[in-house]
Amino acid sequence: MLVQFTIFPTDKGEGLSGYVAEAIRIVDASGLSYKLGPMSTSIEGEWDEVFSVIKECRDAMRRYSNRVYIVIGVDDRAGAVNRIEGKIRSVAEKLGQEPKG
Amino acid sequence: MLVQFTIFPTDKGEGLSGYVAEAIRIVDASGLSYKLGPMSTSIEGEWDEVFSVIKECRDAMRRYSNRVYIVIGVDDRAGAVNRIEGKIRSVAEKLGQEPKG
Amino acid sequence: MLVQFTIFPTDKGEGLSGYVAEAIRIVDASGLSYKLGPMSTSIEGEWDEVFSVIKECRDAMRRYSNRVYIVIGVDDRAGAVNRIEGKIRSVAEKLGQEPKG
Amino acid sequence: MLVQFTIFPTDKGEGLSGYVAEAIRIVDASGLSYKLGPMSTSIEGEWDEVFSVIKECRDAMRRYSNRVYIVIGVDDRAGAVNRIEGKIRSVAEKLGQEPKG
Repeated sequence: MLVQFTIFPTDKGEGLSGYVAEAIRIVDASGLSYKLGPMSTSIEGEWDEVFSVIKECRDAMRRYSNRVYIVIGVDDRAGAVNRIEGKIRSVAEKLGQEPKG
Repeated sequence: MLVQFTIFPTDKGEGLSGYVAEAIRIVDASGLSYKLGPMSTSIEGEWDEVFSVIKECRDAMRRYSNRVYIVIGVDDRAGAVNRIEGKIRSVAEKLGQEPKG
Repeated sequence: MLVQFTIFPTDKGEGLSGYVAEAIRIVDASGLSYKLGPMSTSIEGEWDEVFSVIKECRDAMRRYSNRVYIVIGVDDRAGAVNRIEGKIRSVAEKLGQEPKG
Repeated sequence: MLVQFTIFPTDKGEGLSGYVAEAIRIVDASGLSYKLGPMSTSIEGEWDEVFSVIKECRDAMRRYSNRVYIVIGVDDRAGAVNRIEGKIRSVAEKLGQEPKG
């Protein structure tokens, strides 16, 4: 299962990269395959693995913040694995070129 | 915690209301407070309660479909309860009128 | 075309209903069909109509805020109209009951 | 302005990478700075530039499909530029390490 998520506090002003870094540290420590993007982080794993990581990120953020916003996208496809790199490669092959991944 | 989610199969063609109805049945059976919208369903509850309902919807949909897409938004605010109706009321009061809720 | 959107400033602290109310005022003034939800507003219209309303909401919010976050979902189905109420009704019929809409 | 978007037909079955590739071709031809991710593409530009590209992707997809779904996230921050790479770098510096970007 491939999951993309964005998490941030809404009561901590304009600069948020310190809070985001803490979430990434939790994702990294999970051992799951992941990829950072400019606006979200993608993780691959089973439902319970992935949502337990996102819950841990939320718990950490709520220790400092009274209001946390999260956006999650799930692409759950039967039998699909190694999709963090695979989906970009699959699109690149269709393009017949190397996309800016 | 207030959660809005959209779930649908991507391999079942254009008409999806039968699949959506099955998800709503699961939400309704959970006993949690919820509200249907034109493009999503909002649920209020604790993290584990809400995500266990969404997981149940996904399990049901994956029995018929090889690929399921889910979009989830979480607004997690300390001490906030009864927000399904409360948030709309709060905006309506600021507007000084009855919005089309 | 049916569009659901959420917009808020990320640098204005915890309470946001005043900002949301201003966006709703703009949506209401547009004359397009819409429906408020606990976490988003749904609008029905052509692409240019709907995105011009969302842009107006963003311009208004950026006058007070240095950082604005927006989440938009688009369900664009050929020949589909009157869907703000229609989609909920269609699910309700499948359920064989009156859902909490 | 930084925008992340996902677009796909909901009536074309399970495999979607050919459709996604066509959207990426349109993004690439726009000349705007962009980055592919496993579940979305991020683009940087002014509101009208970015939304005109997304509209073009939708028009192309609707030529083959009766129903198209789009999810868009907008992070609009005053004076912020070169954020496609900058946001990941900013988080990496906070982490004190090189993240898997």
